[in-house]
Amino acid sequence: MSAKINNQEIKRLFDSKNLAYLATLMDDGSPQVTPIWVDIEGNVILVNTAEGRVKQKNVSRDPRVAISTVDNANPYEMVTVRGKVVEQTRRGADEHINKMAKKYLGMDKYPFKMPGEQRILLKIQPDKVFHQKPG
Amino acid sequence: MSAKINNQEIKRLFDSKNLAYLATLMDDGSPQVTPIWVDIEGNVILVNTAEGRVKQKNVSRDPRVAISTVDNANPYEMVTVRGKVVEQTRRGADEHINKMAKKYLGMDKYPFKMPGEQRILLKIQPDKVFHQKPG
Repeated sequence: MSAKINNQEIKRLFDSKNLAYLATLMDDGSPQVTPIWVDIEGNVILVNTAEGRVKQKNVSRDPRVAISTVDNANPYEMVTVRGKVVEQTRRGADEHINKMAKKYLGMDKYPFKMPGEQRILLKIQPDKVFHQKPG
Repeated sequence: MSAKINNQEIKRLFDSKNLAYLATLMDDGSPQVTPIWVDIEGNVILVNTAEGRVKQKNVSRDPRVAISTVDNANPYEMVTVRGKVVEQTRRGADEHINKMAKKYLGMDKYPFKMPGEQRILLKIQPDKVFHQKPG
């Protein structure tokens, strides 16, 4: 069952330049966590990675993930999502990493692409959402 | 097998005001991730939580965790640790949350304590450490 993340407040958290953190599962079931650039499209969270990275291998084995981010401007506003990767696609992944470079670095083109690197988009469906905002 | 985190560079990352993110395991084995205040003491990572919180219940069931933080001053320097909670203790937990309030808020006393809240220190042994620092 999909939970809603496309309300204005949560969308603002994901649309701003706040880094997010993605937790995935290693092959022994232990957690792994890594900082990520994050995007939101409708009710789907997009994470752009490259084939063969630890997180991409992890979600290929077990699609369950969690994502959390805090507002840089207000460290008491945070959102934590639990969900799963429902699709992995190469389509649009190169354009999308440039979009992320624009968002996070202010650059038109992603500057860190490695030779032979295949970008891949992880599409994450949120199942549980916890949004905390101080009153 | 414990990995080393008490070198100068990693210690600096944990000692500065950078928020960290802690990944734990829900009872169905799925990952959960949440922002935390973090401390380091020798080669142990300290996380101060309260009894009954999701992360405290999670690590009581399965002690495997991951922690990641990025340098606020340089978003390309990051450390990610995988390890396990080797001890939970109430001893010193109230003093320690005040230390964290000093570090992160500049306040002498933790201002958010709830009535009846029992603080608890999670002591985390690092097993795998990945430190990335741009050359």
